[in-house]
Amino acid sequence: MPASDDDLKAKQLDAEDPLAPFRERFVIREPELIYLDGNSLGRLPKAAVGRARALVEAEWGERLIRGWNEGWIDAPARVGAKIAELIGAHADEVIVADSTSVNLFKLAVAALRYQKGRSKIVTDDLNFPSDLYVLQGIGELLGEGREVRRIASSDGVHGPVEEIQANLDERTALLTLSHVVFKSGYLYDMAALTRAAHEVGALTLWDLSHSVGSVPIDLGASGADLAVGCSYKYLNGGPGAPAFLYVRRELQAKLANPISGWMGKKDAFDFALDYEPEAGVRKFLTGTPSVVSLALIEPGVELLLEAGMARVREKSLKLSGYLLELYDTHLAPLGFRLASPRDPSYRGSHVSLSHPQALAIDLAMIRELQVIPDFRPPESIRLGLAPLYTSFGEICEAVRRIERIVVEGRHEKYLNDAPVVT
Amino acid sequence: MPASDDDLKAKQLDAEDPLAPFRERFVIREPELIYLDGNSLGRLPKAAVGRARALVEAEWGERLIRGWNEGWIDAPARVGAKIAELIGAHADEVIVADSTSVNLFKLAVAALRYQKGRSKIVTDDLNFPSDLYVLQGIGELLGEGREVRRIASSDGVHGPVEEIQANLDERTALLTLSHVVFKSGYLYDMAALTRAAHEVGALTLWDLSHSVGSVPIDLGASGADLAVGCSYKYLNGGPGAPAFLYVRRELQAKLANPISGWMGKKDAFDFALDYEPEAGVRKFLTGTPSVVSLALIEPGVELLLEAGMARVREKSLKLSGYLLELYDTHLAPLGFRLASPRDPSYRGSHVSLSHPQALAIDLAMIRELQVIPDFRPPESIRLGLAPLYTSFGEICEAVRRIERIVVEGRHEKYLNDAPVVT
Repeated sequence: MPASDDDLKAKQLDAEDPLAPFRERFVIREPELIYLDGNSLGRLPKAAVGRARALVEAEWGERLIRGWNEGWIDAPARVGAKIAELIGAHADEVIVADSTSVNLFKLAVAALRYQKGRSKIVTDDLNFPSDLYVLQGIGELLGEGREVRRIASSDGVHGPVEEIQANLDERTALLTLSHVVFKSGYLYDMAALTRAAHEVGALTLWDLSHSVGSVPIDLGASGADLAVGCSYKYLNGGPGAPAFLYVRRELQAKLANPISGWMGKKDAFDFALDYEPEAGVRKFLTGTPSVVSLALIEPGVELLLEAGMARVREKSLKLSGYLLELYDTHLAPLGFRLASPRDPSYRGSHVSLSHPQALAIDLAMIRELQVIPDFRPPESIRLGLAPLYTSFGEICEAVRRIERIVVEGRHEKYLNDAPVVT
Repeated sequence: MPASDDDLKAKQLDAEDPLAPFRERFVIREPELIYLDGNSLGRLPKAAVGRARALVEAEWGERLIRGWNEGWIDAPARVGAKIAELIGAHADEVIVADSTSVNLFKLAVAALRYQKGRSKIVTDDLNFPSDLYVLQGIGELLGEGREVRRIASSDGVHGPVEEIQANLDERTALLTLSHVVFKSGYLYDMAALTRAAHEVGALTLWDLSHSVGSVPIDLGASGADLAVGCSYKYLNGGPGAPAFLYVRRELQAKLANPISGWMGKKDAFDFALDYEPEAGVRKFLTGTPSVVSLALIEPGVELLLEAGMARVREKSLKLSGYLLELYDTHLAPLGFRLASPRDPSYRGSHVSLSHPQALAIDLAMIRELQVIPDFRPPESIRLGLAPLYTSFGEICEAVRRIERIVVEGRHEKYLNDAPVVT
């Protein structure tokens, strides 16, 4: 069991934490529950409760169709502009729309059609699988010898940076990667890889799903061309909340949305029979946005803007550094292996620990000892650290509980269970 | 002004209306407001208020990521199965996903790729413009001489049925139409046109956005191949609520989703690197669904199932028949022209009236006399009749107010205004 020295240190770290008061801004119904899955679904901001009631009961219930003129129609751009502030983009470069996968499809197809004569997409095997599936589908759809070159990571943890650079050439249309990779939490150097891509004339498309709201991002300074990201992880936007997309200003006029729907049309409400794209990033809208889910994104983004991404990053690294200390002392001796970068400059805000019995341990954590991580096959337990509400005390206690599970064999009854969705 | 005979008749029709009690199942905050825009955004079911609170505050707020195992992951299929009951489909033929435009893209591309050697899409100029934009985009994306043949309606009201049939040939891959067209409310004979399409080997794709929940639909009996539809009109699912799609069982194994994302993959949570489609209609899912907006669809669908589509249709035709009577007597003499079919067998559940000053009249209705219709350029006022909550008394009073506006010239100050989104 962790010695009380760990508790004392956790207490002190919490006492010194300038972001500690943000925890009170979230709904926390079960104080005993240690929630380390904010990297999958962020907690509910208290402000979102009132926003949901107002939107459903007052806006839909009373204002009815008039709601479109009273804020709904501008919501994709308004919320997009706030997300832009978090990711180093101009307000007119980001818009909220659809799901991350649909947005990736739109931007990747747009980039490929623009990059005439180039047939290769470069990515890696650490990318979120849905991104790979979308790219695979695009390759089959566009045909003509399109190649999706999926570079393998040698250890499943670190991005294969050199191999990626070696695969960029004059045939490459697009380099697309997860900025922070979903399993190990490896953080790519966006600026360096974008530079390498640009040197051969390739565009870059970054999936920010695991980095937005958890690490500072500067799309503008890095020269990134395109990006997509989800809003239900560190942005705390709610289950399946709509995603966002980014298109660098200079590219907006050059790229076409392959799913050309009315919300992206110039003068959508003239109901003309022929499509003409809206100027700017709005052309990447397609259908009517899910207004209720979309509205719930805003409170979480506002909390992050208030906290500031520099402070969020500082705390994130302290949280993960503290967790690594406890891992070294208490968990490594029990057969756990670190499956995340040890170097903080390559670390996102979640830490993966692998263990041959990871699934059973994950289930015991959830069902026996009120710790919620998530499990990623074949043997990773991801511990998500959300700086706005994760405390050092929680990390200390979570490690204590994990240790207890393994030492007491409380996971053994789950050894034959199937994974659940977490 | 309408004579009191009209009021008496309205009173009697309301007294005899077996669906009248359903009005109490909706939130109605302003009793003086006559809401005739349920064809754009349906009213808020009272049951949806509790559902929204439970979903946000209890499920997201307390259950957090566990919500996925406790109902969220099944919601697209569960709600889809309920919609299936409304449209004559099997439960495993319908799923809720994305927006209508994105779903149209997915199914139309799937159909075109399946229909090898056929390059023509047939549609009409009464189709919802976003559908035409999506088809136009697909034509440009797939290239190879794809042709979108858009048949013109001779009067802007009735579907050009004979011309459509004449344009179906062995080059036709797909016939796609709005089942009830958005402007005039013309109702296509789905079975007859599907038969004609099948005779030449073409598939059919129906947009049910204006017919689902307002007219009986029997996709199975009509032989329809594919369909999409929105949930925020007569289904009362809330602003921008996710759409649905239908794929006939026999086609499910033959068609591929071009936007192949993780929610449509077999064993999504194995995070394998290669895509393999889920069996059945689930393969047409792409990204993570917007759970909050999706959950709010269910209460409205349940109300329609309880009412029964035969009774809904019976009342809808009585409502529109009564409105046409009042139009003939009170509005035709004031320069209004009927821009919807007079024959009830070709009538959906909204009625369009055109007038050279339609926009100004529309604005005066909203701003001066508390009647909400919607305006469609250049000169249509659409009056949507939602059988679950529109009363005969409201129709009588709405016509009285419209008459008053024109007779008293109360619309004249709006003659130079621009349209608003309604």
